[in-house]
Amino acid sequence: MNLINLKDNTKINHLDIIIEWLSPEINNLNSIIIDLMSNNLPLISKLTNHILSSGGKRIRPILTLACSKLCNYSGDRHIKMASIIEFIHTATLLHDDVVDNSKKRRGKTTANFVWDNKSSILVGDYLLSRAFEMLINDGSLKCLDIVSKASVKISEGEVKQLMAANDFKTSETDYLDIIIHKTAELFSAACEVSAEISGMNEESKKSLADFGKYTGIAFQIIDDTLDYFSISGKSGKETGNDLKEGRMSLPLIICFQRCSIKEKRLMEVIIRKKTLDNDDFIKILNLMKKYNVEQDCINKAKHFSIMAKDSLGRFPDSDSKEKIFNLVDFLSERKV
Amino acid sequence: MNLINLKDNTKINHLDIIIEWLSPEINNLNSIIIDLMSNNLPLISKLTNHILSSGGKRIRPILTLACSKLCNYSGDRHIKMASIIEFIHTATLLHDDVVDNSKKRRGKTTANFVWDNKSSILVGDYLLSRAFEMLINDGSLKCLDIVSKASVKISEGEVKQLMAANDFKTSETDYLDIIIHKTAELFSAACEVSAEISGMNEESKKSLADFGKYTGIAFQIIDDTLDYFSISGKSGKETGNDLKEGRMSLPLIICFQRCSIKEKRLMEVIIRKKTLDNDDFIKILNLMKKYNVEQDCINKAKHFSIMAKDSLGRFPDSDSKEKIFNLVDFLSERKV
Repeated sequence: MNLINLKDNTKINHLDIIIEWLSPEINNLNSIIIDLMSNNLPLISKLTNHILSSGGKRIRPILTLACSKLCNYSGDRHIKMASIIEFIHTATLLHDDVVDNSKKRRGKTTANFVWDNKSSILVGDYLLSRAFEMLINDGSLKCLDIVSKASVKISEGEVKQLMAANDFKTSETDYLDIIIHKTAELFSAACEVSAEISGMNEESKKSLADFGKYTGIAFQIIDDTLDYFSISGKSGKETGNDLKEGRMSLPLIICFQRCSIKEKRLMEVIIRKKTLDNDDFIKILNLMKKYNVEQDCINKAKHFSIMAKDSLGRFPDSDSKEKIFNLVDFLSERKV
Repeated sequence: MNLINLKDNTKINHLDIIIEWLSPEINNLNSIIIDLMSNNLPLISKLTNHILSSGGKRIRPILTLACSKLCNYSGDRHIKMASIIEFIHTATLLHDDVVDNSKKRRGKTTANFVWDNKSSILVGDYLLSRAFEMLINDGSLKCLDIVSKASVKISEGEVKQLMAANDFKTSETDYLDIIIHKTAELFSAACEVSAEISGMNEESKKSLADFGKYTGIAFQIIDDTLDYFSISGKSGKETGNDLKEGRMSLPLIICFQRCSIKEKRLMEVIIRKKTLDNDDFIKILNLMKKYNVEQDCINKAKHFSIMAKDSLGRFPDSDSKEKIFNLVDFLSERKV
């Protein structure tokens, strides 16, 4: 089973190179994931199989594997760490889809609609607990510390996002705080653990933690931008979900800040509606086009991707570093 | 704030004695809990305050504190362990109430009805992550191992319970397997960690783990029995919830096994109904009365409470042991 599916991406060459480069590790990672899916409880195995084989990009575990190469790591704990990071991410996706009442993820019906909310909540709990169990079996308190802190931050970030819903008082600063918590901290942990298992010094660990954090911010900004501007059908992601959910993401915040009082009122009316139609979405898109929101969001993502790359300044130039830089460029320039 | 509220219990004397005996520890436990509630995110602090101060019996942390006394533990890590166990339990309650769509817990409106399902899911995730973070800060891989295994079992148990819903093929063996996973493993962990931090030998740890497990089974059997037979209003627990949810708990399983083919058909019709009225509940109760279900469930709980006490055979008689035995008797004989 090919669990990594990136064939439909525009920057396919860079990713193909990275996936080929990491192919032995990715094969091992897939084995661990398949192993987890074969739980003797059918509901757990079916539901985890549904979400884990749904063609996600697996960016987080790829970052762990790639950063381990950068640190010249020679053992096999990086595979385990990569799978743990992916399980934590998957657990949050299951709960997110319930919280957002999402029907589609990556072009596939979400688990909460194939099964039900109950199953998604409980299997999410199972995956999170299993991730911690695997981490405890690994035995590194430092890795445990890194990952558990990220896990607390994720849940705080989700709560912050929920509280900010429909609230145009949410600033760009608030937005950055939310996405750092809900996304960037796990990216950061994914990279930092690779330095930890490689026995790197404190500065190198910090460099990789920063690298992951900034990469995560850039990734999330692009994700939020694609929610308005992606060419539907290509990414498997429906557009307009964030608007429907009243999520105060960067495009909406920037648009609101820039538009006239009359336009602000229109935006407020739309966001407060219980059910949005396509016309509402088009109205918001037109405002965003008027104020150059898409390009400015992409530029902001670019800003963070540059910070990410500069965070690795202490690492000498190498083949690994070049491939990682290409990955960051892909993540912050992708169209799907 | 008095976070422990057992004043309305019938076996008040035994519990009063235990609470008085553990009062310095319980005060410290309450401080840690209040500390956790003061999160700077209002939603987290309000919701955790709602559920943590709702007058739960706090049986699990009390077991940790009591077993630490039995092990002559003299440090202060038992307080932390007790609060961690309670946080994990609270996280599962928040998710359970969403999964079961419960409106009341301990006579209070559940968090998912005061706020919403989203908040309960996310704050549950937060509490679980925080519990692991505290455990990691404590630094014992053995305690981490004990608690994380219990956490995995809980989620597996919840999934098993969900899959067994409305299914009269569920046997008493299946039921025991479910409650061991969803309840008894955390009771077991609550007791075993006290032996672990006290530096007891392997047999003593196993004794305490067994003691907790059997106490948990007895506790859950009584809980499930009270869901049919409690004197409503006294326990704060509504009766009939398990039947509404189609939960295959011990009273229902025994009743089905004992009744005639005609009565079995009636039970099947009732369990398949989408909405139950009071008449349906009375019909089931009458069948249960006919087949002596209540008393036999109580006897089964008693059986496990005896196993629990016998598990502590290697511990010499002491004041602590006597108080713990009284606690087990209270838990397996309570009427509310």
